[in-house]
Amino acid sequence: MREAYHVELEDLAANLADMSLQAAAAMKKATQALLEADLSLAEQVIGDDQKIDDARAENEEKAYALLALQAPVATDLRTVLAVIHAAESLERMGDLALHVAKAARRRHPQATLPEPVRKYFAEMGELDVRLAEKVADVIKSRDVEAARALEEEDDRVDEIHRHLFTVIMDKDWEHGVAAAVDITLLGRFYERFADHAVSVGKRMVFVATGKMPGYAHDEDL
Amino acid sequence: MREAYHVELEDLAANLADMSLQAAAAMKKATQALLEADLSLAEQVIGDDQKIDDARAENEEKAYALLALQAPVATDLRTVLAVIHAAESLERMGDLALHVAKAARRRHPQATLPEPVRKYFAEMGELDVRLAEKVADVIKSRDVEAARALEEEDDRVDEIHRHLFTVIMDKDWEHGVAAAVDITLLGRFYERFADHAVSVGKRMVFVATGKMPGYAHDEDL
Repeated sequence: MREAYHVELEDLAANLADMSLQAAAAMKKATQALLEADLSLAEQVIGDDQKIDDARAENEEKAYALLALQAPVATDLRTVLAVIHAAESLERMGDLALHVAKAARRRHPQATLPEPVRKYFAEMGELDVRLAEKVADVIKSRDVEAARALEEEDDRVDEIHRHLFTVIMDKDWEHGVAAAVDITLLGRFYERFADHAVSVGKRMVFVATGKMPGYAHDEDL
Repeated sequence: MREAYHVELEDLAANLADMSLQAAAAMKKATQALLEADLSLAEQVIGDDQKIDDARAENEEKAYALLALQAPVATDLRTVLAVIHAAESLERMGDLALHVAKAARRRHPQATLPEPVRKYFAEMGELDVRLAEKVADVIKSRDVEAARALEEEDDRVDEIHRHLFTVIMDKDWEHGVAAAVDITLLGRFYERFADHAVSVGKRMVFVATGKMPGYAHDEDL
């Protein structure tokens, strides 16, 4: 029984890693759609979101079945619960990529972002995608150091996010309120995506070490 | 054993209801701090947030212990997992109230909100507080109709939230970009708070009926 259990747990982890790669792919396309006002790419992200939602539901069902049939205790129990929490964060990352894609679609054929901030979104997009890809690796490897290293990339996202506010609130800002509002929301989507990625990484540290390294909190601004 | 189990489950639900009342109180004070530029009230919300975080951690520990010691199956298992998810949403509601309080503190002694939008935040604040209070009732009563009725209040929050964008993006908006950015973020905090309240309500419907009425999704804008 224990062996069957560990096989199932590995399956769950593999599905989880796959969800993270799906979230990475969604954010990659959504960022490209945003930067290049590419409507068909935006539509693709919007259409694909259901797949991540379904993967989460499936993952949760499997985790429930595992709990009900195997009644794991101690570390095994915490592992299953970490998987359930991680699946929730990964679904949320998919939603945030979806929000970016919808913003790109809403302004199409206009570009959503004025020139001076495009480079910041390009960089946050790259960081978010890389974070989600690394999270997939961490889920598979349970590498505690790699999980901890996620925070550095998250710090860089936070830094860009904070800088965006100084750009749009500058007295020389000449792109108006509507663009500033879009940038505010989009910046938050990228920042939250990175937070959730770190949070999944922390859950995996917990699975590996039995210790939870504090919850990831978003910034207020 | 089953009886001890149900007593523990009732305890968990009582703690959950208490967390919802804490979130309601936090949002009530945060909104007052925001509307009246009341620094000491804002500080109080900021200082109290740890209590909701601790309540969530305690709740999670108890749920884990219950799973490990009682190995519940079927509906009982789903109930415990619903409690774990609900505690996460309630903690998040506390965080969102915290964000509102921090926004009030950041602009102090200036008012964060220009006059034309104050009434909208007053109303969203009331709706959010009422939602969290009703969620506490629903957790205790498992009243499916009351849980479903939460969506109406959430719809009203969404409506105000959408309207805020038309106000700040109007060509006659004369309060500048910084205020628009604050309003954008604050509006989202109130909107997300209501979403999480509805999501807890749905988890409780699930506990009562065994059927999950779809996930609560936030709006993109």
